[in-house]
Amino acid sequence: MPGMMDTVLNLGLTPESAEGLAKITKNERFPWDAYRRFISMFGNVVMGMKHHDFEEILEKWKKKYQLTNDTELSAAQLKNICKDFIAIYKKRTKTTFPLDPQEQLRKSIIAVFESWNNPRAIKYRKIYDIKGLLGTAVNIQAMVFGNRGDDSATGVCFTRNPSTGENKFYGEFLMNAQGEDVVAGIRTPQPIQALQKKMPEAYKKLVTIRNNLEKHYRDLQDMEFTIQDKKLFMLQTRNGKRTAQAAVKIAVDMVKAKLIDKKTALNRIDPNQLDQLLHPTFDPKAKKNVIARGLPASPGAAFGKVIFHADETEKLAARKENIILVRIETSAEDVGGMHAAQGILTTRGGMTSHAAVVARGMGTCCVAGCGSIQIDYKKEEFTVDGKTVKKGDYISLDGSLGEVILGKIPTVEQTLSGDFNTLLKWADEYRKLRVRTNADTAEDAKRARSFGADGIGLCRTEHMFFHESRIDYVRQMILVASDVTSLTAIVDEMETALEKIPGKKIRSFQEKMKKAIKNLNEAQNLYTTALKKLLPMQRGDFEKIFTIMKGLPVTIRLLDPPLHEFLPKEDSLQRKIAKKIGASLHAVKEKISSLQEINPMLGLRGCRLGIIYPDIYKMQVQAIIEAAIHMKKKGIKVLPEIMLPLIGTVGEMELLKKEVEKTANSIFAKKGTKINYKIGTMIEIPRAALIADQIASHAEFFSFGTNDLTQMAFGYSRDDVGAFVPQFMQLGILEKDPFQVLDQSGIGLLVQMGIEKGRQVRADLKVGICGEHGGEPSSIEFCHRNNMDYVSCSPFRVPIARLAAAQAAI
Amino acid sequence: MPGMMDTVLNLGLTPESAEGLAKITKNERFPWDAYRRFISMFGNVVMGMKHHDFEEILEKWKKKYQLTNDTELSAAQLKNICKDFIAIYKKRTKTTFPLDPQEQLRKSIIAVFESWNNPRAIKYRKIYDIKGLLGTAVNIQAMVFGNRGDDSATGVCFTRNPSTGENKFYGEFLMNAQGEDVVAGIRTPQPIQALQKKMPEAYKKLVTIRNNLEKHYRDLQDMEFTIQDKKLFMLQTRNGKRTAQAAVKIAVDMVKAKLIDKKTALNRIDPNQLDQLLHPTFDPKAKKNVIARGLPASPGAAFGKVIFHADETEKLAARKENIILVRIETSAEDVGGMHAAQGILTTRGGMTSHAAVVARGMGTCCVAGCGSIQIDYKKEEFTVDGKTVKKGDYISLDGSLGEVILGKIPTVEQTLSGDFNTLLKWADEYRKLRVRTNADTAEDAKRARSFGADGIGLCRTEHMFFHESRIDYVRQMILVASDVTSLTAIVDEMETALEKIPGKKIRSFQEKMKKAIKNLNEAQNLYTTALKKLLPMQRGDFEKIFTIMKGLPVTIRLLDPPLHEFLPKEDSLQRKIAKKIGASLHAVKEKISSLQEINPMLGLRGCRLGIIYPDIYKMQVQAIIEAAIHMKKKGIKVLPEIMLPLIGTVGEMELLKKEVEKTANSIFAKKGTKINYKIGTMIEIPRAALIADQIASHAEFFSFGTNDLTQMAFGYSRDDVGAFVPQFMQLGILEKDPFQVLDQSGIGLLVQMGIEKGRQVRADLKVGICGEHGGEPSSIEFCHRNNMDYVSCSPFRVPIARLAAAQAAI
Repeated sequence: MPGMMDTVLNLGLTPESAEGLAKITKNERFPWDAYRRFISMFGNVVMGMKHHDFEEILEKWKKKYQLTNDTELSAAQLKNICKDFIAIYKKRTKTTFPLDPQEQLRKSIIAVFESWNNPRAIKYRKIYDIKGLLGTAVNIQAMVFGNRGDDSATGVCFTRNPSTGENKFYGEFLMNAQGEDVVAGIRTPQPIQALQKKMPEAYKKLVTIRNNLEKHYRDLQDMEFTIQDKKLFMLQTRNGKRTAQAAVKIAVDMVKAKLIDKKTALNRIDPNQLDQLLHPTFDPKAKKNVIARGLPASPGAAFGKVIFHADETEKLAARKENIILVRIETSAEDVGGMHAAQGILTTRGGMTSHAAVVARGMGTCCVAGCGSIQIDYKKEEFTVDGKTVKKGDYISLDGSLGEVILGKIPTVEQTLSGDFNTLLKWADEYRKLRVRTNADTAEDAKRARSFGADGIGLCRTEHMFFHESRIDYVRQMILVASDVTSLTAIVDEMETALEKIPGKKIRSFQEKMKKAIKNLNEAQNLYTTALKKLLPMQRGDFEKIFTIMKGLPVTIRLLDPPLHEFLPKEDSLQRKIAKKIGASLHAVKEKISSLQEINPMLGLRGCRLGIIYPDIYKMQVQAIIEAAIHMKKKGIKVLPEIMLPLIGTVGEMELLKKEVEKTANSIFAKKGTKINYKIGTMIEIPRAALIADQIASHAEFFSFGTNDLTQMAFGYSRDDVGAFVPQFMQLGILEKDPFQVLDQSGIGLLVQMGIEKGRQVRADLKVGICGEHGGEPSSIEFCHRNNMDYVSCSPFRVPIARLAAAQAAI
Repeated sequence: MPGMMDTVLNLGLTPESAEGLAKITKNERFPWDAYRRFISMFGNVVMGMKHHDFEEILEKWKKKYQLTNDTELSAAQLKNICKDFIAIYKKRTKTTFPLDPQEQLRKSIIAVFESWNNPRAIKYRKIYDIKGLLGTAVNIQAMVFGNRGDDSATGVCFTRNPSTGENKFYGEFLMNAQGEDVVAGIRTPQPIQALQKKMPEAYKKLVTIRNNLEKHYRDLQDMEFTIQDKKLFMLQTRNGKRTAQAAVKIAVDMVKAKLIDKKTALNRIDPNQLDQLLHPTFDPKAKKNVIARGLPASPGAAFGKVIFHADETEKLAARKENIILVRIETSAEDVGGMHAAQGILTTRGGMTSHAAVVARGMGTCCVAGCGSIQIDYKKEEFTVDGKTVKKGDYISLDGSLGEVILGKIPTVEQTLSGDFNTLLKWADEYRKLRVRTNADTAEDAKRARSFGADGIGLCRTEHMFFHESRIDYVRQMILVASDVTSLTAIVDEMETALEKIPGKKIRSFQEKMKKAIKNLNEAQNLYTTALKKLLPMQRGDFEKIFTIMKGLPVTIRLLDPPLHEFLPKEDSLQRKIAKKIGASLHAVKEKISSLQEINPMLGLRGCRLGIIYPDIYKMQVQAIIEAAIHMKKKGIKVLPEIMLPLIGTVGEMELLKKEVEKTANSIFAKKGTKINYKIGTMIEIPRAALIADQIASHAEFFSFGTNDLTQMAFGYSRDDVGAFVPQFMQLGILEKDPFQVLDQSGIGLLVQMGIEKGRQVRADLKVGICGEHGGEPSSIEFCHRNNMDYVSCSPFRVPIARLAAAQAAI
């Protein structure tokens, strides 16, 4: 436990007793080896000296004697080293090294007790919520010496292989050594099986103990032992740490061997660890030159050439090149390039920045918010810590650790074992929560279904808008939409004004009105054309997704992001769209700038768009309903759920629900057939949770958008929190990043209020969550406890959520 | 009531009965005049025809006969007009004009009943929350005719003067006319006193009725009458609309005359109306060429030359020029210019945009979010509706109506009457809420105190940072602050790493460390220098404010806005600051761009700044405490309350409270004296309201920042809502602008929760509000009902709040 004391070995030794010990053991080297170890451990652990004070001396002497290994040091040489150790001890601590064993012991005991109240230990207890303890204990034990000669040894072993889970005794040992040598890696230990030859008796005993301990604890044991003069002493046993692969295999094997039951097996696996099984990793033996560290935003590993622009990434990736897309931050228009890249690196933004969210959704590895990197877009290079990496240079990213590595590190693909599937099937037996997925494309949907998703909980229609074949129509639609609105208002106003115009001015006024109506008609035309082009494309998307998800519910969220996200920043693209809509470049630039917002998070987006530009939502609803009818005709069961984003007032819900129904009913009438569908909303605006009773009287389901709920109720922009949230976590102001782990004591209250008020009005209200938290185990436990119907998460987290939901139920 | 029917006069007339009436009354003209009025009224009110259909005909005939006035039309001419009226009626309604009086009546009655369900009426009832009515009534009355000849007349009168409140019979009448003529203003009516000569009997009777009605209703009456053949008929009496000035005078006069009691007098005044008494207005007789309409963001009226830049405004204003500052939007760096301007016009932003809030605070008139105006900063001109206004042209602004007017309209200064003071004193007798003010400068504080403020509820320290003498130090502080933080982290990290560096690399590593420490010291130096320069300036500000507010509490909010708001955008200013801190222009530009945020509303601001850069808050606390001690020594009673903005977690509150106390205690120790002060927080983050119990255990007071609370809980950026909130209000999705009127059903729940949870933990928790809502009457009523201790509003709204608080208590 950090903040607790480390071990002090060989306590009690003095030069005097060392001489005695040499005589008794007939081994002059051993006690001086033990003594020099004792001085440095006591100096470090009890007196707070730095390790390197001692290491420097050791190196100096080894150099002098031209030795490469500690074990080659003779007794005489060790005595010299001890002298130097004592000297540096005096220099640093301003005290002489205690020669009285009682004093050595007392000082060590006091140091342990005092460590209880050092700031690190206090913080540690706070973070892990360790309460009600009176203090720490001090363990005083007689020594056994693994360094007493060639009949002595020390080692660490596991009852099974902690890497693979294979049921085979696993470990390593060193002859004539103390435990710290095994860990330090100065000498290369031998595999445990070699002990059988060297000390058959001790080995036999060790195997018996291994078997007994595992049977007793019914779990993988991590054991330490020392052999002194051929006699085996067990120092410690504890449940062993293991890789995800091993955890799964061991759990399933133990159920099969009837050592544990299924519930225990399920509880044994840390759901977060499963991520390792789903994404490629680096070859663990590869050497890594880590040049920077950012946030581990999306797990996995990748290497590729550095490219700074999304469009170039798309082009090069099409030629089968491995690309790492490097950006200060990403936006919606980079999505194509992000999809084509092997990995994404950003220098700004948090765990739920655009880059992170999109990357996780696509299962692409991503390191985000890597603030130490300075990007120069003009020169197409980045610098970090004095190093410069140019466009085309290779880098590698470890998205699970947040590492940026120079050069090309080979990756290893993971394969899903049969054990993993067995375990998840067991999870399904126990869990009450359904696990849906956030999927925007047929590809995502397919993957999620193969991972066992129970439906789609969030299909973001805006990601479909970025395809090359569509974006121009989307842009046309957006640039003309506000003209239609404002011209309509002008014509309306003129019509009203007409009544008050004095007779003689009527004619010239009517001329003006005609012109306004002509302009309106032109804009309307461009607008309608764009929508008509987009309709069959969207319908096609939905047909594909409905086919893949047949028999399962699919929740489709209508357009959500602020419109300016779709508009081009580059002159050339702006010129292209200007030509298309018959406007000047200047006019297009003005329109784009007029759509900019100071806080886009809190601006014209979500259902607000659907109200200001009703035709856009109408087109989307038409696409959904028509796609569903087409599928129904083919005999495919579809369960569309239309989700209105960003509802904050009951008026928005009422009005849009009516609009959706009107569109659906008119299609039903035209096609002469009907399908079942639901209308619901995301609860992502704090106010929506506060008035959930009002909203529920018009909504058939709630999906808690806890990303936005967290942003707004905390007042944290997920794109800007990099400047303070990491520090807040260090200071203990935030225990966890609230974008990763649902803040149950704050945001959780809003969620609970929302569920409670919603179900007061509509007892059968379907409730789910589709924020990032839907794939996070402790948040899933919260969802289970609060009687949600489902969680929805990115495809790669579906297995994790299945397991976490089962653990919550158990 | 809009949406209800207007009157249809003269119903029952037909060409036949008109002839008969002419015979009986021996007046051929009169019945045909009545008939033409009837046709047009019936056409318009019952059949929905446009007014101008009839007016066009009337104009045509008057032109033909070369007449300028309706009254000059003879019976024969009127008959012709009636024929044309009947023809246009047929053309528009595709029906013949009913000749059967029963049918005329039935159609009119049906039209009234149907009007109950027209969309305008439904919306009207929804907005004014009119519920539980079964339908509308139809009133059928026998006609008396004021147009029956020269012994007939019609008029409108008030028991007192509705403009000034003077207790003198007031009104006007027309001879030989029907009521609509008085309103339409085609002929010029005579003052009511002239009636005494013309018809002394009728006049005498009217005066008696006037006296009786006022005594009966105990309020100003607005009466309509008609005289037919010298006989007076009263048509209607109702409480009269009046100006603020009249309202105050009448209420106070009536109390003095013992007609009403003080409570009634207080309840009679609409607090919002008082605004009229505090700001200059335009001469009501001036002609106005209104070229655009925006939001009435800050009341008052002003004219001046159009200038597009804040700094130029300051320069010209110093030369006593009247300036209207015209901007797309304003930011913190424009405050100097805004202060110097007579009026402010913006094309973007809502009622609580930066421009609006600052303008209201300063009492400067402002029209905001005037979207129809296109500003071209380069050409220094704006265009609206085809007109171009250049730099230096005169415009006038009416901040109470939101009007932008071409040219120079003279303004009239208001003087506060003694009656107004009397009324407010009465208000103070009844109100339970204290009324504090939001004041950042000595000037504001003085004004607020003269308006009767009970203290300062919000003193924003950042506005003090913009003075020319300070801004450079502020910028130095900001640009270096993050260097200090990051260099400290680097040196710390190096120190830790030192332990692990192998012996031989130590020396070169130590060299590097020395360099890092040197850089850190340099940055620290610049940082400390800036803070040291700012300390005495801030202290001086507080001393001035404490002196003005002696004996009253002063709540000071520590630095709140994101730091990038203070940094210059222009190259020249950036170069200046670069030179000052010894950095390159490029480095300064990079730093400024690195401080930019995607959603500054939700970024590094408020107490988050105080945690990341503790020295800034420390300097501010030192300035407050030292200022208080200095004042105490001078015998001035000071009650400083230190307010931490944007608290969202209990950890922030805990940590900063400790820091404030530490700073205060060290000053107390140094100065050998103490002062009383409080530490509290704004509740403006939704999460803070949810965990108010936790926060209250560390905070002595809560001040609800309902501006930010509304922004975050609604998910509305007050700078961006112009794109949808006006439409939402038109659609009835929002009944009121939630930034003007507290949304009691949503945001109000958070406020109530915050108060309840806070007082659970600390029964004597002082609770106030310091958002814009603190000066809005219905919100003040909410604050009263929820047992707040005080409201705080801008100086100009203090009188309004005093009255509203009294009304809430009554």
